[in-house]
Amino acid sequence: MLGTVMHAPGDVRYETVDDPKILKPTDAIIRLSATCICGSDLWPYRGAQPLDEPMAMGHEYCGVVEEVGSEVRNVRPGQFVVGSFVLSDNTCPHCRFGYPSSCEQREFMTGAQAPYARVPLADGTLVATENMPTNDQIPHMLAVSDVLGTGYYAAEAAGVKEGSTAVVVGDGAVGLMGVLSAKLMGAERIIAMSRHESRQKLALEFGATDIVETRGEEGVAAIKEMTNGVGADAVLECVGMQESMDQALGCARPGGAVGFVGVPHGVTIAGDGLFFHQKRLFGGPAPVRRYLPKLMDMVLKSEMQPGKVFDLELPIDQVAEGYKAMDERRAIKTLLRV
Amino acid sequence: MLGTVMHAPGDVRYETVDDPKILKPTDAIIRLSATCICGSDLWPYRGAQPLDEPMAMGHEYCGVVEEVGSEVRNVRPGQFVVGSFVLSDNTCPHCRFGYPSSCEQREFMTGAQAPYARVPLADGTLVATENMPTNDQIPHMLAVSDVLGTGYYAAEAAGVKEGSTAVVVGDGAVGLMGVLSAKLMGAERIIAMSRHESRQKLALEFGATDIVETRGEEGVAAIKEMTNGVGADAVLECVGMQESMDQALGCARPGGAVGFVGVPHGVTIAGDGLFFHQKRLFGGPAPVRRYLPKLMDMVLKSEMQPGKVFDLELPIDQVAEGYKAMDERRAIKTLLRV
Repeated sequence: MLGTVMHAPGDVRYETVDDPKILKPTDAIIRLSATCICGSDLWPYRGAQPLDEPMAMGHEYCGVVEEVGSEVRNVRPGQFVVGSFVLSDNTCPHCRFGYPSSCEQREFMTGAQAPYARVPLADGTLVATENMPTNDQIPHMLAVSDVLGTGYYAAEAAGVKEGSTAVVVGDGAVGLMGVLSAKLMGAERIIAMSRHESRQKLALEFGATDIVETRGEEGVAAIKEMTNGVGADAVLECVGMQESMDQALGCARPGGAVGFVGVPHGVTIAGDGLFFHQKRLFGGPAPVRRYLPKLMDMVLKSEMQPGKVFDLELPIDQVAEGYKAMDERRAIKTLLRV
Repeated sequence: MLGTVMHAPGDVRYETVDDPKILKPTDAIIRLSATCICGSDLWPYRGAQPLDEPMAMGHEYCGVVEEVGSEVRNVRPGQFVVGSFVLSDNTCPHCRFGYPSSCEQREFMTGAQAPYARVPLADGTLVATENMPTNDQIPHMLAVSDVLGTGYYAAEAAGVKEGSTAVVVGDGAVGLMGVLSAKLMGAERIIAMSRHESRQKLALEFGATDIVETRGEEGVAAIKEMTNGVGADAVLECVGMQESMDQALGCARPGGAVGFVGVPHGVTIAGDGLFFHQKRLFGGPAPVRRYLPKLMDMVLKSEMQPGKVFDLELPIDQVAEGYKAMDERRAIKTLLRV
């Protein structure tokens, strides 16, 4: 079949790859209903993350089960499924503690920017729906697989609750899903830090109550001013750079929390600052598997439309243009039709 | 009067100082019932923290109100009081949010290794008892002022709850109070990491269920082995060094938490490690004021004896020996009779 391979920074090709096969009895093969490009795919694309050999791209997925290994019990061919970008057995102590993204057997999904993909640990990773979703529901279901789940975790890790004041640092797709998630969790005030008009618009649509265009120290000062000098109860760090982490920590009130989901690139945190400013910090790869049943159900009941985050839709053979558009910030997030 | 002044590393003197006076209408003057030396006093004593000028020492205190400023309403002369080592107004947004240790008017107590001391922000900081405690209760009441409150916060910040497995890194006085606090919060298993027999004994008395003598990577491996490879739900970091922080983070399970109360000295935390190992981190100066009513009440009802942490008692004019004994680890914590 054809699939998406990154050969070097800036060099993404839709080319012939091996057909995915059942390699272990716990695998499943799915036919993708749609797939997409993740903000984290841009790290190697921009050369900010080493790429030792050509890499099969894609870790967000939903689709129909084609084939299952001999030990798979929970899903069967013909079912529509969504899985997490982190593969997990859903039975180990970390999974049972609520952190499937730290599963003892943790693997990260790969090769999903393609018409078919192999999903290891299928029983633990995949959640099936009762009925086949409509075409309109597919983008929303796809969003649940990573981008929404990650934004949701940012809000959870930041401790957003009924009545909270939340700040979202980062107006990429995850940040926008963070806005939506903070709204779902009952935040009263949601301040999106964004300088891009199209993203501001979407943030407001997802539930943001305020927009702050400044960043860095100036941005922190703006948040302080808007909160009577107090700072925010909960801050969602959805970027992964030193500047964004410092900004996030600066925006949180003492006793407040920063939930960070942007994969940190060169970020360090000084212990004494964290101590004397008394900020809570929690992040990591989102435990999406834990959220899947709830978030999929909300999509099926039309209680939210997270798929609105896809502002560019391309046939998968134009995947290279999808990367380019996101790299150049012409697109927030690209959905690929398969 | 005479009071304790540190002139240089290793040079602590009990010498003539100015009598404390009401400087602001919100001040109180107290006559100390007892005072003590804090582990954090050893940082400058050991030259690990700069000392630009002679410093009036002492921030843990309880005693009887002598005099109050014209605006003090909540305490009156003759009352027995305990205060936090952090002075706070108890009315600002941070105080109301539960973090008086980040009060907008935050000051740190000083000059309490003396017979009398000035307590700024008396209304916010001090809590009075209904009756005069007995002499036997004084060491326990004194412990509440900082060392117990700090251990209690470590346990709270680490999220200890009914049934938790908790690990305590650091067998100083705060660590031992962390053990006691984890016990109070219902931890089922409390593993004290300690290499000193006298401290191990006290840890067991305060509720530790296990002792681990190794530290660093070896210590982490021991904790992993004792928890079936999982790690601890809650880890109390009660030291403040890079090694102890790394050890604490290593002992926590994914989704678990490190509560850190040792003032960090040169500690940095790598964002990517925190991310991929998915550990929660929270610390700072303990919000002791919030705990005072509850912990004082427990002492008065003889529900705990935190004052057992004082294993050396000296008349205050021998304060220099008290520092020396703690520096040389001959004493865990020195109580000074005034």
